[in-house]
Amino acid sequence: MVTRIITISRQFGSGGRTIGKKIAEESGYAYYDKDLIEKVAKESGLAPEYVEEQGEYAPSRYPFSYAFEGRSINGMSVSDYLLNIQRRVILELAEKEPCVIVGRCADYILKGRNDCLNVFIHADEEKRAERIVTLYGETESSPKKRLYEKDRKRAVNYKYYTGRNWGEACNYHLTLDSGKLGIDHCVKLICDCIK
Amino acid sequence: MVTRIITISRQFGSGGRTIGKKIAEESGYAYYDKDLIEKVAKESGLAPEYVEEQGEYAPSRYPFSYAFEGRSINGMSVSDYLLNIQRRVILELAEKEPCVIVGRCADYILKGRNDCLNVFIHADEEKRAERIVTLYGETESSPKKRLYEKDRKRAVNYKYYTGRNWGEACNYHLTLDSGKLGIDHCVKLICDCIK
Repeated sequence: MVTRIITISRQFGSGGRTIGKKIAEESGYAYYDKDLIEKVAKESGLAPEYVEEQGEYAPSRYPFSYAFEGRSINGMSVSDYLLNIQRRVILELAEKEPCVIVGRCADYILKGRNDCLNVFIHADEEKRAERIVTLYGETESSPKKRLYEKDRKRAVNYKYYTGRNWGEACNYHLTLDSGKLGIDHCVKLICDCIK
Repeated sequence: MVTRIITISRQFGSGGRTIGKKIAEESGYAYYDKDLIEKVAKESGLAPEYVEEQGEYAPSRYPFSYAFEGRSINGMSVSDYLLNIQRRVILELAEKEPCVIVGRCADYILKGRNDCLNVFIHADEEKRAERIVTLYGETESSPKKRLYEKDRKRAVNYKYYTGRNWGEACNYHLTLDSGKLGIDHCVKLICDCIK
């Protein structure tokens, strides 16, 4: 079975997004990350910033969530409404063309297909803290606290939406430590799996 | 840093042992599995069958465990005595020569070294059930029950001995679904990581 879709789940700061982009460049597959967020925002009528935050993280005191607190759309909470549309958009994109999809529980949403390769990228805390300070210009005094909070929210969201444990090897076909193996070698290993 | 040691943890029936053997053949590294058990048995004075079962699985109603129930050696339970010797043997083998070590919490025991590649092999239940029936001639009416029981004991033993969750991606540099990727492709991917 040819692999048409690669889903990338990743710890914050592990370079999963960079790896996804490079795989798309090497393979010629489409790359869905920001485009996916914009498409969901357009279809839902919600702000892209809200979609970006709430479509992947458990509810937080993020400014955009206040606006919708206690409201409902079509009898659903705004959060469930967003996740429903996000799910539909991911299913449509997967049908449309070979692609790389980053985050958003895409591995779970596409679990019925056998043309997916589900990947999880992680790295040790030191390496990820260094990366977010260097690349994203994180200015917080405690980058490790930021890593912990972002990943905790991703894990809670994944559990709520899928019933599974985020980062459990059995949920993925391939998991890689980008700190140990290096970004480029991760790209090579994943590309080797879709040839 | 050159990789001198590959540790392979694996779900029962996933082909992890076969993958370990093939990596050793391809890389020229020593392969420790049964030899390790025999060495631990010799140094501890315990029966190889007891070492094989209790050095990797949580205590069970396995016949060999009865003989030692409630006893102690050097002020330790027999189980802790065994794990201590197993730990020492693994540390010695890792010093001795480049090698592949299957199971026995070797990933955790060698965690202080940065010349290790820690791998976890898994596969879906269907594929593993098929494998144990075909290869090991399992005759039980419910091979899936056997898979569940073996893996549960490995997980409990790993948790007791390491404090970590067995099969959690972050504990390994590489985890692979041998059912999806195939045994030979897993061997290739792992060998690519030690070149």
